[in-house]
Amino acid sequence: MTNGGRHLARAEIIAIGSELLGSARLDTNSLLLSERLATLGIELRSKTVVGDNRSEVAEHVRRALDRVDLVILTGGLGPTDDDVTRDAVADVVGRPLVEYPDIVERLRQRFARRNLQMPDVNRRQALVIDGGIVLDNPNGTAPGQMVDVGGKLVVLLPGPPRELKPMMDALVAGPLAERVGVERLFRTTLLTVGRGESHVEELAQPVYSKWLQLNPPIETTILAAPGQIELHLVTRSADADAAAAALTHARDELLAVFGPDVFSTDGRAMEEIVGQLLLDRSLTIAAAESCTGGLMLSRLTDIPGSSAYVVGGVVAYSNELKTGLACVPPALIEAHGAVSEPVAIALAEGVRSKTGASIGVGITGIAGPSGGTPQKPVGTVAVAVSSALASPRSRLFWLYGTRTMIKFQAAQMGLDMVRRLLQEPVSGR
Amino acid sequence: MTNGGRHLARAEIIAIGSELLGSARLDTNSLLLSERLATLGIELRSKTVVGDNRSEVAEHVRRALDRVDLVILTGGLGPTDDDVTRDAVADVVGRPLVEYPDIVERLRQRFARRNLQMPDVNRRQALVIDGGIVLDNPNGTAPGQMVDVGGKLVVLLPGPPRELKPMMDALVAGPLAERVGVERLFRTTLLTVGRGESHVEELAQPVYSKWLQLNPPIETTILAAPGQIELHLVTRSADADAAAAALTHARDELLAVFGPDVFSTDGRAMEEIVGQLLLDRSLTIAAAESCTGGLMLSRLTDIPGSSAYVVGGVVAYSNELKTGLACVPPALIEAHGAVSEPVAIALAEGVRSKTGASIGVGITGIAGPSGGTPQKPVGTVAVAVSSALASPRSRLFWLYGTRTMIKFQAAQMGLDMVRRLLQEPVSGR
Repeated sequence: MTNGGRHLARAEIIAIGSELLGSARLDTNSLLLSERLATLGIELRSKTVVGDNRSEVAEHVRRALDRVDLVILTGGLGPTDDDVTRDAVADVVGRPLVEYPDIVERLRQRFARRNLQMPDVNRRQALVIDGGIVLDNPNGTAPGQMVDVGGKLVVLLPGPPRELKPMMDALVAGPLAERVGVERLFRTTLLTVGRGESHVEELAQPVYSKWLQLNPPIETTILAAPGQIELHLVTRSADADAAAAALTHARDELLAVFGPDVFSTDGRAMEEIVGQLLLDRSLTIAAAESCTGGLMLSRLTDIPGSSAYVVGGVVAYSNELKTGLACVPPALIEAHGAVSEPVAIALAEGVRSKTGASIGVGITGIAGPSGGTPQKPVGTVAVAVSSALASPRSRLFWLYGTRTMIKFQAAQMGLDMVRRLLQEPVSGR
Repeated sequence: MTNGGRHLARAEIIAIGSELLGSARLDTNSLLLSERLATLGIELRSKTVVGDNRSEVAEHVRRALDRVDLVILTGGLGPTDDDVTRDAVADVVGRPLVEYPDIVERLRQRFARRNLQMPDVNRRQALVIDGGIVLDNPNGTAPGQMVDVGGKLVVLLPGPPRELKPMMDALVAGPLAERVGVERLFRTTLLTVGRGESHVEELAQPVYSKWLQLNPPIETTILAAPGQIELHLVTRSADADAAAAALTHARDELLAVFGPDVFSTDGRAMEEIVGQLLLDRSLTIAAAESCTGGLMLSRLTDIPGSSAYVVGGVVAYSNELKTGLACVPPALIEAHGAVSEPVAIALAEGVRSKTGASIGVGITGIAGPSGGTPQKPVGTVAVAVSSALASPRSRLFWLYGTRTMIKFQAAQMGLDMVRRLLQEPVSGR
């Protein structure tokens, strides 16, 4: 069956399940599938969630087959009447469902191993679209299926992630790998911090617009995410080395423009970058956080192994704790206000001396929605870094958005000031 | 425009953005939209994610208009060439884009308020599909649009949630409400903590199975979310009072079964419930967190107004800080290990005495992936609460999942122990 089929270049994913259309659940299987497709160089063009409705599933499969050459369906392979995926695809390809006796037998044995008799409804799971290939499911009752439709492929996978994942991995290792062309997708990502989206666009556009004339061209997308602006570079090529070289060259052009505003070129998050820098230099970190309420330390400790460099610190939400736990002189708060660079510096120095960490970070600000003043509106945040590497430094930021957005960005700025400090060329100091 | 249109009964959502097709991000806006549509009694039939490609977006909009009478698009309204939603819909309806001078002016003023000049690219955001209705965006630059297409509606909303949400709410209150039938969906949700999903199902099933015989029936869905199991009750009715009474009665039946394991009946998260309990009794809270790295305090401070009851605390990641900052006797750590109930109690009492808060919480555990032992595997977490209300109490939990899942559940257990303490009937003590 894999002979004579066309090369698979473009895919769509269709997740089936009415529960995925509610307000509580998302189709997360598509994240895994998207990653696996990218590895194969197959472009994911769209993904859809449809309810458990036979004719609607059929309609979406039909449309997808008009547009792409690989359609991956997930879910709807259970034993009940609600599970319509098999029937819907059979309708689309105009072939009958055939009961496979060996699947029935395997299902029976699976139930018998638990001293259960197989309910008769489970025979539905042994129905295979005529001419389809059965995909083994070591972790559940529903086998998958793969059907050739005029050189295009429709793949039916079960919904539970632990059943879907090994099945997709087997497909990626075998049948799908045999069907991809020599051209693959290659990508690189630059994460920047410190400039707004339109500013990044303005600086990047003259650089990346030239890349569209390359052969093969490199396409660039700019995305604004909380606390960072991302530049995604993608090219399609049959020559892995040439593609890698072209992307590296392109990346370096952007690095020359953005300099230290680029904090990650391999997709790693800010907390991971900072963690690695600390680890590389055997430094430790502590923080005294006010408006972020512990978020910066929580993000740092999301990274496995962070106990090697995170000492801990203080959440000084009240002014009493700022003076009591973080050693900020009360007079300083009176003179400058709790949200000020001098207080941020006192927090950073206080927590560093109190914990003995190599680096201390202080964050104080107004996360809102209330508490702002004309002089210090909601989003005003002072951040400071204290270390033995340089004299203390502080900055005042005006961040925007909701309370949680301001918290996230304030933590991001704290981490970023540490990163910039650690990435500076070592002076003769 | 709303006159003469048909009743809106069925909808599709199309999220636009290449970044939503990768392996790192999901379209979460659809959860909010799905909830709002349900409130209106409009059925969501499918949802799709498409990349930033004009002709593909147009193709998906065209297909959706064949199937349903309301198509909601999110994203792609930014100022750059990547933002294709306006153009794609204009292609579908065959009408030109018109620049609205008053939108240009509003954009200019928005930039001017930050002492910035509007980049010329932002004029794209003032382009409206001819005949469309402009939807005001108080939180961003991209206005939304609503276009009538032969009695069907296409709505263009911006991607950022804080811009999309108020716009959708305004639509739900006005233009969309005018166009729906008399039957609406009513729902109530119970959030439980302390029991696994199958245990909740076992207890709830005999109760909710009867509700399917009611007229109108109440349907129940059980969802496992991190740190909580949710029971969603939904009914469809033309009589709002009768539906509310039926749901209240049903909810009370479940409350009788689950008792204090139900922590929320109005959708509020654990940190908000705990915050309200503290506020009601004018109590304050502090925490000494080890494995959660500040996450519990960060979650508490996500709630607006939390400065009224969150004092702050200590992140004692290293053993030195546990003894130094949180006053845990070194001998206690030596005798029981850092992850133990006695150390959790010492953390809770230490941070309470150090900060003067009414309630102190101590959390210490092994978040993994490494650091586990046969006696204390990854996921072992000790939590304690100290207060003037009762003698200190502690519990040992065995949590499962990834590092961030364990952190989240550990914080949840800390908050939940506080909740249970504050919800206990006051004894004669």
